This record gives sequence, structure tokens and C-alpha cells, in this order.
Amino acid sequence: MKLEDFEGARDLLKGIVRETRLIRSECFSEYCENDVYMKPENMQVTGSYKIRGAYCKVRALLREKTPRGIITSSAGNHAQGVAYAAQKAGVNATIVMPVTTPLVKVNNTKQYGAEVVLEGDFFDEAYQAALRLAAQKGYEMIHPFNDLDIALGQGTMVFEILRDLPDAEVLIVPIGGGGLAAGVSTLAKILNPEIHIIGVEPSGAASMTLSLKNGRISTVKNVQTIADGVAVATPGDIVFPFIRENVDEVLLVEDEELPTVFLDLVEKHKLIAENAGLLSLAALRKLNFKGRKVVSVISGGNMDVMTMAGMVQYGLVDRRRVFTFSALLPDRPGALAKLTSLVAKHKGNLIRLEHNRFVNVNRNAAVELEITLEAFGREHRDEIMEALKEAGYDAHLSMTKTIT
Amino acid sequence: MKLEDFEGARDLLKGIVRETRLIRSECFSEYCENDVYMKPENMQVTGSYKIRGAYCKVRALLREKTPRGIITSSAGNHAQGVAYAAQKAGVNATIVMPVTTPLVKVNNTKQYGAEVVLEGDFFDEAYQAALRLAAQKGYEMIHPFNDLDIALGQGTMVFEILRDLPDAEVLIVPIGGGGLAAGVSTLAKILNPEIHIIGVEPSGAASMTLSLKNGRISTVKNVQTIADGVAVATPGDIVFPFIRENVDEVLLVEDEELPTVFLDLVEKHKLIAENAGLLSLAALRKLNFKGRKVVSVISGGNMDVMTMAGMVQYGLVDRRRVFTFSALLPDRPGALAKLTSLVAKHKGNLIRLEHNRFVNVNRNAAVELEITLEAFGREHRDEIMEALKEAGYDAHLSMTKTIT
Repeated sequence: MKLEDFEGARDLLKGIVRETRLIRSECFSEYCENDVYMKPENMQVTGSYKIRGAYCKVRALLREKTPRGIITSSAGNHAQGVAYAAQKAGVNATIVMPVTTPLVKVNNTKQYGAEVVLEGDFFDEAYQAALRLAAQKGYEMIHPFNDLDIALGQGTMVFEILRDLPDAEVLIVPIGGGGLAAGVSTLAKILNPEIHIIGVEPSGAASMTLSLKNGRISTVKNVQTIADGVAVATPGDIVFPFIRENVDEVLLVEDEELPTVFLDLVEKHKLIAENAGLLSLAALRKLNFKGRKVVSVISGGNMDVMTMAGMVQYGLVDRRRVFTFSALLPDRPGALAKLTSLVAKHKGNLIRLEHNRFVNVNRNAAVELEITLEAFGREHRDEIMEALKEAGYDAHLSMTKTIT
Repeated sequence: MKLEDFEGARDLLKGIVRETRLIRSECFSEYCENDVYMKPENMQVTGSYKIRGAYCKVRALLREKTPRGIITSSAGNHAQGVAYAAQKAGVNATIVMPVTTPLVKVNNTKQYGAEVVLEGDFFDEAYQAALRLAAQKGYEMIHPFNDLDIALGQGTMVFEILRDLPDAEVLIVPIGGGGLAAGVSTLAKILNPEIHIIGVEPSGAASMTLSLKNGRISTVKNVQTIADGVAVATPGDIVFPFIRENVDEVLLVEDEELPTVFLDLVEKHKLIAENAGLLSLAALRKLNFKGRKVVSVISGGNMDVMTMAGMVQYGLVDRRRVFTFSALLPDRPGALAKLTSLVAKHKGNLIRLEHNRFVNVNRNAAVELEITLEAFGREHRDEIMEALKEAGYDAHLSMTKTIT
């Protein structure tokens, strides 16, 4: 991939993609004592950077011949990227999605004019179905990441990053199959060989880390991460050499680190990112340098609202804004009123209460009460728990319990 | 308020506020068959436009004399705006907040270097406390909206709107006390007398609508709205004449209309707005014209995450993504397993189950079961309910029930 290839891709994408502008983050700058900017590709058309590569690939195919149609399989951002790209390029698109795909993603993909075929319980089965359909109908298959036209398209965001921040010193990108990382790292090093490129993987799908360690494409056995956008067991062999050459290091992030970053992004920047998009922000805490100009690529924002509800709840529990405790009560009229009055006096706000009488034969501690409260934070929680203990209740925090 | 006053305010604000860029919205354009752009002041420093007016006011005070300090009362965006403005201008700030203010807002305000005094159970009491403190300590009081320096600052966003979209035809702004609407409408009419200005109020706090109808400042008796940022019983008399002259119409929005707009903004634009900030988007459905270039001002994004969790849940229920039903079961081993297997077969995803045996003396319908499920949408919900009925269950939807 050469500079002129990237320039060609950039020219193709004019008027198709949004030139998302860097956003400086005081909050994340303070986190890591660097000067942090975010590349908000969550605000890109279709909700992720995938449209960049998908459109370049479709146009590359059209240069060679007029295909009967294009086809791909994906339950995620690639599906929407290809559907939108095909619509813009005026070619038929078929997307094979697993039957378990949430309706909202199916509808988003259809909305861009693609035909959606639901087949297979999992991605691999959908992928095989797409290959069969491609052969049968003479459609061109578009791989989500293992393709140089795809990588060229993804890399174009570097032109925009360096226009907004010409003296950027560090770029952080998530790695799934490697298309984004290959494109971004290669163009960045062409434009500024001094720039430092950091890839980020979830530790539950660290296939690029393994492949780099082994010096060849390797497969991880179990893929287990909430960052579904980068849950890839085997990186792409075509893009791998570019990553080996241009990505300086790969950092790992645990799933548990993501909800707090999600809430920070919501509260400080009013932005939603999907879990894969949060990796480059979560990685900021792991940098071994300070005072540098860092750009974190937020790769996408297509988080299902149901998942979002879970993230918010997890984050609230994590911040002690919501907590659950249990206590045993005597089985007497007024016992519940007494305890809840005490909670009210300390301004604990009741979210959920479960009152279970089938616990004990001792009628002085015969009712198990489980209460979920909203508090102002850790101190307030501790104050309420302290007050309960002083009043003689044997109250215990249930730390892992969410609101349900 | 003249053009040169607004220009002066704009110059003051250079380097202090972000020049938020208009974002075109395909989704909201389709809603109302106009060409809709959003002015994302939720992404402004401090999370709302309030910093614009607050900073102009602080600088205006400093021109006359060096005050011992400034003081205001607010539990919301004005508090953060004044605190940040004072910090930037290098003057002491005291913010009186009701004792019920969530810790997160107290902390955000402190973070900008302001002293926070917690006093009073409600806003009015905090306001009286601030007046007392101002007299006692010789601080200058800053009113949140009834002040021309404040209105001048808020109006500066019109320069940015018309730079991004010189041929804007309609501006939509939320109205609380009137500071924002006065500034925006006055400058917009100066720059383009043809522009149409629409104000939006929640119907539960329609004090400007009432005042305009009466031709004088009037007070609504009950203020009841989830759009806390504009929950104002009496508009400001200083800014009122400007609104009367320059705002062409005021539309009303119901609280119930906001959660869906919230989810649309999250899903399509990956942006969070607070309820007051959603008014100008909710109002799009009420326009009596088509094909015009419309700018909706998203005034702020400081939604508490706890409120956000509620909005998401309400939105999911509203979209039939989550629903609750109840059914009576015979009190026999295996009865629950049979029903849940049926639900699983139709791919309903269990969120919550309550099994209550104390309902009936008839052992063939003695157990009340309440189940909350995640579904793909309305069709899927109906499919599951139909399957239950076909299998002989007397199942009923509980429409109003949220996940809790």
C-alpha cells in the first residue's frame, strides 16, 4: 500500500463519508497525563469506520467488471458499511446474517437497500452460506478485513487526523481482524515515520497478539469478549505483514474495564461508543509515557440499546451509585416500616425490595429482606450501611448484584 | 441588544467556548420532511450552552468593578457554566445548591473551582440563601436567564449556525426562562429578518406560552416536567420583550414524547441529550411546513446516568423490545418448565421472572407467573403471546410495566 493508493481511496470517499473532526478530551487527558484527542468514527455514516473500506472495495470491484451483485456475511458494522456502500455505488448487495441477529441490525441493513438473508445460528454458518450463495449467483464476496482495498479505505482517516492535529505523536486503534490497524498504521508511518502506533485487543480475543508473538497467523481457541466488533479468532493473512511492520505495540484490555470508560464518555462528552470503540480509550491507562499528543480512534458506536442499559447499570453499581444489601428482620408488624424509615432518613432512594419470609424458624430473624438503593456515591452508601448497623441490623452488602 | 453587542460577546468567548459544528440528521429530516441540522450544544464545554452567557456576564461585571466574588443558585447547567466562567475569568464563585442535588452535579461544579454551599430543600430556598449570602459577603448575584449580558452570550451561537449553514430558514430553540430564546431570536432576526424562529416548551411548564398569550409576564401554578432544564414557573421580564418581538411561535411538547427522541438520537447519532435538549427535536413532528432548512438547538447533554437508565428502559418498553406478561399456572411440578420451554422455543429472552403461589385456591390455576422478556420488536412479541395462547395459557400483557 503506497501513498498514492491511499490518496486514491481518499478521493473516492469524498462526499460519501463524513470527515469526522477530532475532539479534545480533558477528561481522558487527565486520566493518562497525555494530551488526548478522540477520532469519533462512531459518528461516521452507518455508525462506524467500516463504510470507508467497504466503499473502496465496491468501487475497486466495479473498475474490473460489473458484478451481478456483491455479498458478504456479518451481523455487525461491516453489514451496514457494505449495504450503504453498495447503495451509493449503485450495485445490488446481499448480506447473510445469523438468524440470531437483533431485529434492529437487520432493519438498519435493509434500510440501506440491501437484501438480507437470515441463515445459520452463528457467524461461521452465515459465512459458509454467503460463500455458497456467491458461487451459485455469481456474486462477488467482500471480506470484512482481509483485503487491501478495505485496508486502504480504513487508512484514509489518517489524512483527517493529521489535518486536525499535524503534530500527533501517538495513534491508538482497536484490532479485530487487522484491516483498520493495517491501513491506519501504514499510512501514518508513510506520512510521519516517527509516529508511534498502538493497537488494542480485548484479552478475550487476543489473536493478533498471539500471531505477532508466533511470527505467523495464529488462531485463538476461545473467543470471549463483550467487544463483539473485534471478536476475531484468526487475523487476516493479507493485512498481517503491514501490521507486523507498522504497529509498534499491542496492548490488552479486560472487558471489565469498559463500562467505566463508557460512562466517562457519556458523562463528559455525551457520546455513545460500542465496546470495541471503547478499547482505544481504555488503553490510555496503560501507556508508559506522558505528555504526548495521543489520538484514540473510537471505531464505532453501534451499541444495542439493550446492551447500553446493561452498561449503564453495571457502571452505576461500579460507582456505588446503586447497591444491594440484605438484612434479616424479625417477623413482626412494623419491622419493615422501621427499617425503611431509617433508610429514608438517610436519603437512600429505594429501587427494589424483596421480602422473603421462608428463611428461618427463629421468628426474631425470620424475614430476609433484600433492598436495592440509589445513593450519591460510596460515602453515602457507607453512611447508610453504618446507620443500619448502629440500629442493630445485621446488614450485608451484595456486591455483585446489579439492579436486574 | 444590537449587532455590535453580540459581536462583542462573540469576541469575548473566543478560546473559551467550543464552536460546535452543525450535524445534519437524515433520521430527523425524514421525520418531518425538512432538511434538519442539529446544533450540538450538548457537546459544549460544561455540557450546555450556559457557559456562553455566564462568561459574558462575569466579564461584564469585571468591566465595572472587581467584585469580591460572584454567586448564583442552581442545581443544573447554570451552576457549571458560572463555575467554569468564573474560573476562566479568575474570580471567586459560590454556588448555592439545594441539599437534594445529586453528588455528581455537586462534584462537577466543584471541579471548576467553585465553592458549593448546600442549602434548602428546593430551588427557591437555595435562591433565597444565595441572595442572603450575596448581601452578607458583598458578592455579585448572577441570574440564570433574566439578564441581557446572559442573553447576548447565548445568542452568539447564531454566528456559528449561519457560518455552517448560511441559508438556514428555521431555528428551533427550547424556552425555559427565556435567556437563550431572547439572544438567539434577536441576533438571528438582525442577521436575517426572514428567518423563522420557533420556541419549544414542555406542556408541563408552559410559562412563556401563557405570558405571550396574556401579553405580560405570567406564572404557571404547577410546574411538572421531566425537562428539568426548562422547568421555570415565571419567565424573565427583562428578556420577555425580545421574545415577544422575535420569536414567531411557541410549540408545546409532552414529556412522553421525549424518550423515543432520546433513543433515536442515541441510535442514529450516538449522542446523549438531556430532556430539555430533546425538546427542539421532538418539536420537529409538529411543524406545519416541509422542505425547509431547519436547525434544532440541542441545548444540553447533562443527563444523570440514573435518569438515562430510566429513559433507555422506557424507550425499550415503548418499542416493544421489552415486555411483561402474566399467566396463571397449575400448581404442579413441571408446569413452569413447560411454559419457559415454550418461550425459549420462540426465542424470547428471559429478563425477569416472578413466581407467586399465593393467588388462588384452585390448584389448576394457583400460581401467578409474571415474566419480563426481551424480544426483537412488536411482531416477535405478538408471536410469543400467540404461541402461549395456542398452548392454552391465559397470558396477559402488562403494558405499563417496565423492567424495574
